[in-house]
Order: sequence, then structure tokens, then C-alpha cells
Amino acid sequence: MNEEKEAVTLKDLGEFGLIDRITKKIKSYQKNTKLGPGDDAAVIKSQNNILVSSDMLVEGVHFDMSFTPLKHLGYKSVIVNISDIYAMNAIPTHITVNLGISSKYTLEAIDELYDGILLACKKYKVDIIGGDITSCLNGLTISITVIGEGNENEIVRRSGAKENDLLVTTGDLGGAYMGLNVLQREKEVWKNNQNMQPELDNFNYILERQLKPEARKDIIESFKDNNIKPTSMIDISDGLASEIFHICKSSNVGCQVYEDKIPIDSETYKTSMDFNINPTISALNGGEDYELLFTINQKDYEKIKNDPKITVIGHITKKDQGINLVGKGNTLTPLKAQGWNHFNS
Amino acid sequence: MNEEKEAVTLKDLGEFGLIDRITKKIKSYQKNTKLGPGDDAAVIKSQNNILVSSDMLVEGVHFDMSFTPLKHLGYKSVIVNISDIYAMNAIPTHITVNLGISSKYTLEAIDELYDGILLACKKYKVDIIGGDITSCLNGLTISITVIGEGNENEIVRRSGAKENDLLVTTGDLGGAYMGLNVLQREKEVWKNNQNMQPELDNFNYILERQLKPEARKDIIESFKDNNIKPTSMIDISDGLASEIFHICKSSNVGCQVYEDKIPIDSETYKTSMDFNINPTISALNGGEDYELLFTINQKDYEKIKNDPKITVIGHITKKDQGINLVGKGNTLTPLKAQGWNHFNS
Repeated sequence: MNEEKEAVTLKDLGEFGLIDRITKKIKSYQKNTKLGPGDDAAVIKSQNNILVSSDMLVEGVHFDMSFTPLKHLGYKSVIVNISDIYAMNAIPTHITVNLGISSKYTLEAIDELYDGILLACKKYKVDIIGGDITSCLNGLTISITVIGEGNENEIVRRSGAKENDLLVTTGDLGGAYMGLNVLQREKEVWKNNQNMQPELDNFNYILERQLKPEARKDIIESFKDNNIKPTSMIDISDGLASEIFHICKSSNVGCQVYEDKIPIDSETYKTSMDFNINPTISALNGGEDYELLFTINQKDYEKIKNDPKITVIGHITKKDQGINLVGKGNTLTPLKAQGWNHFNS
Repeated sequence: MNEEKEAVTLKDLGEFGLIDRITKKIKSYQKNTKLGPGDDAAVIKSQNNILVSSDMLVEGVHFDMSFTPLKHLGYKSVIVNISDIYAMNAIPTHITVNLGISSKYTLEAIDELYDGILLACKKYKVDIIGGDITSCLNGLTISITVIGEGNENEIVRRSGAKENDLLVTTGDLGGAYMGLNVLQREKEVWKNNQNMQPELDNFNYILERQLKPEARKDIIESFKDNNIKPTSMIDISDGLASEIFHICKSSNVGCQVYEDKIPIDSETYKTSMDFNINPTISALNGGEDYELLFTINQKDYEKIKNDPKITVIGHITKKDQGINLVGKGNTLTPLKAQGWNHFNS
């Protein structure tokens, strides 16, 4: 059986065959999906605000196949997208998946990738309603568009932060970046001596942060349960500093962030020190944590103060006070939005 | 001025700078675009059925930069997508644009590409509401998702064709394919002798069909004006034969197509003969014409019979009669769905 399965190639199946194969695995979780994949377009019945966001992941830029399991990659590619809808305080409902696949990928590799995509869709109750599969000359490109729904008075933009609002983050930061550092180090070791086994045992948490992140659906649900509406929100994909800049720029405000408040997991902290990277820098510039950064009116502080998933890290100021990190001894350092510049490589 | 402009590189601008630059050029044509690019997601106010379709175009697979002007490529990449929404008898309203750009592309090249995208959006009144721009290791990848609107009782699927319905195509077919053949021939000539100028003067129509196709918005409007609802519809992207197979498979029917009815422009016909390709084959298997193929109930024949943009090319039969081309002397040849298999190259 197994041999027979391996004998089928992407070339044998062709584009339509591959699409058929994948379409058969797709389940529907959303009642308003009136027409899924298989026609010129999908149809969604809507009486609400539709939210749309789109991201492209490129091999060699966003992921390194030498240490990224395909199933994790598929999972992460969905998370990266739906996280943007949660960051609007809305619910992701549908995605389209476009894949560009070079000939080095086998049918089984695509199945694995899709298994991860399907798993994320199942967990977050998101319907795959269409997409495109094409060959490409090199590597793998994943382009996903996510569609979500939100009530008009619940949608949160980046632009609503006001002076004296609290700046809040979920979870902890810098882990995904340190996970990437570990994977890259072990790859170098392996390249120099291919008999070496990678040492990954002590890095479970940060490796999972890098390879299989989750989106903060729970936070959006808890906002609803506790009747909280953030004044502004963004997801942390490029790094805390970069996202703070986005909120401050969109909201036309300044900000003070307290270094000692930034939540950093002990594994992230220890690994960062081992790599001679200031853990605060990992948290500020690392990116890919997919936590939510938001601002709330001070009157809502009581509602969140006991939630272990949420940490107040600063407050919003007038624009002319700038964007500053408050370090030990109350030293003020202007923050720099480093983020990622893909065109720098 | 010009020198100064040329000195700015993609690397200088960075991802956010490039997104800012493009975002400034984006205009809104749709009243229900409540939030465009610049946040985690865009917001569309909807009280209707939302249609979604997505396509990916990859350099070296879908387009050859040696003969494709970037502005035309941008234009075409929008057309390819919105054509899928028209093929549902609906109206495209919004797109997201994801670009993967390798370092060989300059800022001016991206501006040109975007000029074409913006031009198509202006012509078809489609809003760009988001997207992603990233570097990639090789070439150029364009992944667009289009969103449209349609009334529940107007949306046309592939699956509604019934026995005795008429099979109808818009425009003429095979032109885009012959345009591609001419471009590829002239590229070969030029590779052998770079002093040769390409001979393209006599091929204006088919070159435009290949390089700058249009989508059949006019047909959808005329359906509305004449109170016509096709029973099934698809756009002709992979070739007439392939699309006929899609309709017949989805509708569980057979079909007879009359060879002498297939509309072929005289320039397509002549060029096809010069290339020793049977013009019927160009029309059946060529693809990329972005015409609409649809079926209508015979009672609607009176409404379309005088429309020069529309040609009846056959009729729907029971499934067990198969899918046949009726040639000269009433010979029946089973049609083959050739289409494109990108994984064959």
C-alpha cells in the first residue's frame, strides 16, 4: 500500500487532481459558508462587518525547511493570518489558501503541509473556502487570506489609543525569536558535523513558540465575557517595539513602556542570556510571538488585573513625550522600531 | 530629480516604507469599505452574499518577464481574479494584493506593476483593502484575493446546467494563446540574434488578448438589463475544453459543441494556421481568454440571439451521451480536457 501511495507524483495528479484531493479533506465549521471550494468563487452569507487580512510566507525568508516540520508550517501559516483578525477584536471564519510549490516537494509533503492547515482550521473553527495551487520555480510560497466577522461596535483598530490608557500585552514575549536562534545554532552545528544530533531537549517551550504558535482567541473571548473593549489593538508579529510604534503612529500618541514589566518566560530569559542577547531586546525586537498588544481605559484595569494571561507594561502619553522605554533607575531611552525588514537580507 | 528618484532602493524603503508608498496611491470606489489598508485587517460592511476567490501568478510559470510589461502584468493579475467573480454573476468589490519580490526588482519596477494594478481597480471600481509585501529569493509572485457581492437569487454556480440548455460563450477564443505563441517565437529569434527587432506589428489584437485582457463586466450588466440568469457559468482561464468539462462534471450532464460555431477572430485564425496549429485546438485548449462560458435555458435564446458579444456553440445533453465536438459532416469526437498542468513542466 505504502509503495503504491509513494508512486503518485504531483505531476501525475496535476493541478486539478491535487485540488480534488485536498478539497475532499476540507470540512465546514461555519453555518454561513454557502458554497466552499470548487467553483469560480466561494459564497458566504453575511449580515455583518466582514474583516479581511492577507499574509504571504516565503521559503528562505519566513521559514527554513531544514528545521521546520511541514505540518507545523501549515499550522503556523493559518495562525499568522487569523491572529490579525483577533487583533481587530473579531472572529476569523474563512480562509483561502494559495500555494506555490516547486518540484522538490512530493505529494506527501503537500499532504503534511495541508494536515497542519486543516488542524489549525479545526481548532479555530475556520472554513477553507478556496485557493489556488500552482508550481513555482523555487521553494514554497504560502499566501493565505483570512476573512472574519465582527460587530460594528466591537471592532478595535490601531488608532484609538488615548492619553493615560494602559498599554497591555498578553502572554510572554521573545520566546519565538529565541526558539529561532536555537534552531539556527543547531543547524550550523549539524552542517559542520552531520553525526551530531541537535540539542533541543531543553528548549521545548521556545521551540513551540517558534514552530507552532497559537492565536489568542481566548483573549478575545475573555474581552467579551468581561465586557472589555480595548481602545486600540495589534498582534505582535514583527516585535513589541514595532507594534508599539504602529499603535502610537496610528493613534497620534506617545508611550512609556516599563522594561521590568515586559513579560519574559524563564526559558526565553535563560536562552537569551546564553546567546549574549539582552532578554529585553529579544522581547522588543524578536517578533513572531502572535500575542496581542492593546490599550485600555484605566477604568477597565480592575477587570484585567487578576488575569495571569495579561500584563500591563506601560501607558499612553501625549505624542510630544515620545515613545520611551523606562529602564532601571527610571532612565528613559527612546524606543526604536526595529521589526523585520525582509529587503535587508 | 530623476537621479535622486533612482537612488531610492527597496532596501532603503523597507517593507513598511514600501507599503506606505503604495497605500498613498490607493483610492476607494466602494461605499462599504469602512477600513482600508493599514490596520491588522480591512473592514467591509455587508448585508449581502460575499464571494471570495484567489489566484497566484508566479514568474516563469504564469508570466515571462522578458516580454511582459510590468504595468500590463499588474493589470492582468487583477483581471484574472475579478473574472472569477463575474463568472458567478456577481460584482467584484475588493481585493487584497500579496507580492513576493526578489532583489532583481527595483522600486520603479514595483511602481509600474502597481500602476497596472491601480488602473484595473479604477476601471472596474474595485478597492484595494490590504495585502502583504515581502522579499523572496527568486522572481516575482503575485497572489490576489478578490471579494465580491451578489444577491442570493442572482449567483450562478457551475453546477446548474440542464439537458437541452444552450452552451454559450462570449467574445472569441484562442487569441491569448496565439499572442503567447508570437511572443515566445520572437523571444527565440531575439535570443539567436539580438540585433533583430521583434516583429509584432501585425499581431495587435492577439498580443493585447495575452498581455492585457479584460474581464466581462459588460456581460454581467447585460444579463441584468435583459433579465437573464444563466443556469451555469465559468470563466475561460484554462481553455474552452477544460471549462466545458468543469461545467459538465459539476452539473452531471453531457454536452455537444459545434466546431464551426466556436468564435475565432481572423487574426487568431491566421496566426494559428501560420504556426501549424489547428485554430479549433487553439480555441479549445489555449486558455487565458477570460471570456465567460455559460448555459441558458432555451427560452432565453430570443434575448441573446442578436447580441454580437455572445455565441451559442452547443447544447447540454444527458450525461451518458458524453462530451463531444461535432465536426464537419456531423462527425462526433469526444472532447479532451487539456487545460494547463503546471506540474508538467
